[in-house]
Amino acid sequence: MKPLPLDWRIVLVRPRNPLNIGAAARALANFGLRDMRVVAPFEPTWREARSAAVGAEQVVESARAVATLLDAIGDATLVLGTTTGQRRNLDRTILPLPELATWLGRRKVRGQAALLFGSEKTGLSNEHLSLCHALVRIPTVPDCVSMNLGQAVAVCAYELMRAGVLAARPPRLTVHRSGPADLEALERLFERAAHMLDVSGYLKPQSRQAMLIKLRRLLLDLQLTSHDVRVLGGILAQVEWKLAQGADSE
Amino acid sequence: MKPLPLDWRIVLVRPRNPLNIGAAARALANFGLRDMRVVAPFEPTWREARSAAVGAEQVVESARAVATLLDAIGDATLVLGTTTGQRRNLDRTILPLPELATWLGRRKVRGQAALLFGSEKTGLSNEHLSLCHALVRIPTVPDCVSMNLGQAVAVCAYELMRAGVLAARPPRLTVHRSGPADLEALERLFERAAHMLDVSGYLKPQSRQAMLIKLRRLLLDLQLTSHDVRVLGGILAQVEWKLAQGADSE
Repeated sequence: MKPLPLDWRIVLVRPRNPLNIGAAARALANFGLRDMRVVAPFEPTWREARSAAVGAEQVVESARAVATLLDAIGDATLVLGTTTGQRRNLDRTILPLPELATWLGRRKVRGQAALLFGSEKTGLSNEHLSLCHALVRIPTVPDCVSMNLGQAVAVCAYELMRAGVLAARPPRLTVHRSGPADLEALERLFERAAHMLDVSGYLKPQSRQAMLIKLRRLLLDLQLTSHDVRVLGGILAQVEWKLAQGADSE
Repeated sequence: MKPLPLDWRIVLVRPRNPLNIGAAARALANFGLRDMRVVAPFEPTWREARSAAVGAEQVVESARAVATLLDAIGDATLVLGTTTGQRRNLDRTILPLPELATWLGRRKVRGQAALLFGSEKTGLSNEHLSLCHALVRIPTVPDCVSMNLGQAVAVCAYELMRAGVLAARPPRLTVHRSGPADLEALERLFERAAHMLDVSGYLKPQSRQAMLIKLRRLLLDLQLTSHDVRVLGGILAQVEWKLAQGADSE
């Protein structure tokens, strides 16, 4: 099944080395990608990044540094994280990069997609990974799994181009009545649900964080449409209201 | 036609920047390649090259610096040069990198192959190109054709691996997921949810039946796994309990 072209955004999460930001920008420009966001870089020296972005200075100029990962991916309908596959406690699908196009074809995703790259030393944290629909693994060999950040971005950008899942001309997202929910809407729903779970005593302090990560994953896996999110949001609002009533009368 | 796996050697011709030698070595190691030769580097500082070859120091150690291109490729049965396709007077076939495997399959080549990368600024000279059986072009976009050397090597090494023309075969990652929930479990979950919605006042008598049908459909569409059902069941139980508490104290 042929996948639909998507608007891809590359997101670097907490990169340490400005030269890697520049190298990533250059690789994007090589394959016609323009949209890069950088989450909370360790050393936000854009001058150095520009110097490494030969021929791609514009990509660096237009890259936005944002404070949180959610700021970077808020309007995306599909979020993929890159991983070496070494971290243990993952329960996301791990797609070998060469199989990404087939997977996208099956899911018929459209619109804005984001591909995340973690920090050079640590990769993406479990919390970052919990915002991803699936994980992509560049099929490196077991005894040398960890790639240089700029090279990893180059390989992924090449594969997106090769597999034909890049939008030739980034068209602005047309909104379909019941298209997939965007991450921002999902996050609002998630926060509402988390609040309800706090109020109802479902979340225990010692396991709260781990449980929330599990639940966010579960929520992403459901592939809710924006219609679903509205319905579920309405339900949560009502339950919240009722729980508050009970609390008032105590 | 499936190409035969080949022994690939990567040859950097007159690289200027030792860091690029290191980056190239790292990319090779990532994809299970070991054989690198460096022809007359401008600054043969192997120490710097090693520092950029994180996890691939061995590839740098065993790389041979040779005086001429012929020294590097003498024993190869197939020599391919990389090009941006900008140089005019070429009379060689230019293969887009994604089509390399098909081309190799047709030619039934076997044995030792060499893939050449030119100097950062100038690429391969016409003399170098004249030693190549064919040229390979990474399909970059027209307004930004020139890639960083380390990134170009990474993309080519990835493609050799992806296309199955390398012996290295990384193991597939298995993903553990629980199976789809059975209808009985879904129905119990649905009844529990309906009860909560009744108690919380979400369902109004005149629209109750229609709303429940809509919600059951939504629930089915989610394609929950049995694991999902267990988690959601636990949540509903807790919310139910809390709602009942509120009711008791009214």
